[in-house]
Amino acid sequence: MTDAKKKNEKNILLLTTGGTIASLPGENGLEPQLDGDDLLRSVRGYYPQHTFACKSIMKHDSSNIQPEHWQVLARAVHEVQDLYDGVIVTHGTDTMAYTAAALSFMIRNLNKPVVLTGSQIPASEPASDAPGNLHTAIAAVECGIRGVTVAFAGRVINGTRAVKTSTMGMAAFESVNAPLMAEVKADGMRVYATSTALLEPGSPPKLDDRLCTDVCLVKLVPGTKPELFDALLSLKYRGVVIEAFGAGGVHYIERNLVEKIDMLRRNGVVVAVCSQCLYERVDLTVYEVGSRLVEAGVIPCADMTTEAVVTKLMWALGRALERSGDADPIAEVGAIFATGYAGEISLK
Amino acid sequence: MTDAKKKNEKNILLLTTGGTIASLPGENGLEPQLDGDDLLRSVRGYYPQHTFACKSIMKHDSSNIQPEHWQVLARAVHEVQDLYDGVIVTHGTDTMAYTAAALSFMIRNLNKPVVLTGSQIPASEPASDAPGNLHTAIAAVECGIRGVTVAFAGRVINGTRAVKTSTMGMAAFESVNAPLMAEVKADGMRVYATSTALLEPGSPPKLDDRLCTDVCLVKLVPGTKPELFDALLSLKYRGVVIEAFGAGGVHYIERNLVEKIDMLRRNGVVVAVCSQCLYERVDLTVYEVGSRLVEAGVIPCADMTTEAVVTKLMWALGRALERSGDADPIAEVGAIFATGYAGEISLK
Repeated sequence: MTDAKKKNEKNILLLTTGGTIASLPGENGLEPQLDGDDLLRSVRGYYPQHTFACKSIMKHDSSNIQPEHWQVLARAVHEVQDLYDGVIVTHGTDTMAYTAAALSFMIRNLNKPVVLTGSQIPASEPASDAPGNLHTAIAAVECGIRGVTVAFAGRVINGTRAVKTSTMGMAAFESVNAPLMAEVKADGMRVYATSTALLEPGSPPKLDDRLCTDVCLVKLVPGTKPELFDALLSLKYRGVVIEAFGAGGVHYIERNLVEKIDMLRRNGVVVAVCSQCLYERVDLTVYEVGSRLVEAGVIPCADMTTEAVVTKLMWALGRALERSGDADPIAEVGAIFATGYAGEISLK
Repeated sequence: MTDAKKKNEKNILLLTTGGTIASLPGENGLEPQLDGDDLLRSVRGYYPQHTFACKSIMKHDSSNIQPEHWQVLARAVHEVQDLYDGVIVTHGTDTMAYTAAALSFMIRNLNKPVVLTGSQIPASEPASDAPGNLHTAIAAVECGIRGVTVAFAGRVINGTRAVKTSTMGMAAFESVNAPLMAEVKADGMRVYATSTALLEPGSPPKLDDRLCTDVCLVKLVPGTKPELFDALLSLKYRGVVIEAFGAGGVHYIERNLVEKIDMLRRNGVVVAVCSQCLYERVDLTVYEVGSRLVEAGVIPCADMTTEAVVTKLMWALGRALERSGDADPIAEVGAIFATGYAGEISLK
């Protein structure tokens, strides 16, 4: 065996979690049933040089995947990452972007590829996109793209920048506010970036899986009632993410939301503001209302996706509350939000 | 004057509502101050054949534009629409898509162009996109594109299909799940559709401006708490729009949202389900959870935008509650949602 060939040998773990990719028709619609060996059947033959291992860690439709599952998955990945050249996680598409962002924060200094993939059509159907997506995921491992990524429809996306934008189309994910990490071309994978984050040289990957699930997302609409924010306080949320209008607008005439955001802050609730526009950044310095929000102590989320903001807030609160207890964790969470961990934010 | 020239004469009303387009730097950031004559100054000279009238009806940042303002605007448009060949409404971009959708429902059988436009950079600044957007809006009136549209960055979008997708880019709006109605090319406006809706021949435009503002939007995240739905019931919402995962997923293990949606329905709250994915449709028939939602009596919103769903639900409830009072308005609202009024839904 030549050195060149040896160099290309990869030891890959396939972790399966369910999702459309693993689904078969059941009594009440599609149900996740296939395991890793089933999924690899149609692609394995193309890679005699690689060794594949499979492990099923759950069988859920991804609409049901929640923070507790991210913790199970993060621990599973962290536990095995030094045994393999890369880990491929098959996952439903519906919440894959949330899981990818959550894993990106929960496993720090990750110097191996952890590639999430899935499919829009079950692997068991002839027109399925599962084989193509698995090929893309395997190529991402072969290219050694470090950190958590989403491989879908020939594209490799930073796990903190992926957004599912299409309910039915095969190219279901976009890389939002960041270039692709890599993409499949006729002559192979073209790699634009080799790691989702700066790695601390010599430091091993570190699991930091604390999460605070007392986080709520509020996407504003014209007429959103201030009373809703009183209810959020009663429900004891510790963090609220507001998907504001445009670059960070909220209404304050007729129904004064600024006053309610201020009320949440005074009660120690961390409030983060992102945009309901898919693309580009919030900027709270342009309009009058923005400066009022800054005065109230909200965290502006620059160009982060909503998926990244929500998971980062759960993670940041998990760390900050453990340290500060019932005190206002705003300073620590603010500092975490002003730091880029996995390419999730464009800092000035 | 030739007949051809006469034919091209248009009598246009410019209604101004504030927004970035009309903004000047104030003490606390940009404030809407300019009126219609100011806005027309740089474009009027190109159109000696047209007659322009201007009317300021409010001066708000569009983050502050709410259902009560839609009613003022709908009445203002309806009142004057037979006096002009077209009405151009300048409006902030942040909630323009909501206003456009709301007007589309509130003025039925509209056989004149009502074109919303605005700008990302104030008209008072040299790099402003205001002149270009006003030219596009005037071209939409010249081409006689009937119904409510959004004219922005050389594109004319059905008012029920517009979504602001970019916080900073000049091409801030997309036409979601529907083709453009028209677009500006080097050789003029290319028109793909001349009306946003089927018109009842011979029927005059009709104002139907009842709105129920007891409508809440809930965009799900993994881990959204069931207790939030109890709070919505306490807050006496009559309608709840759920931005579900993918084609209509909601979680029901760990935290059972299906049971809570069922609870809302049993209490007469109308629940509509759309997707948090920007593109394509919800389909509640594919997965098990979808059939449970259908059983609970939720309204699936096909490929409508969230902006159209929220405004249509306010409008449908406004009509239905006036008739049914405290009874469950689900049948009437369901029938309204199954009907296309302004191209807002792709019906099978």
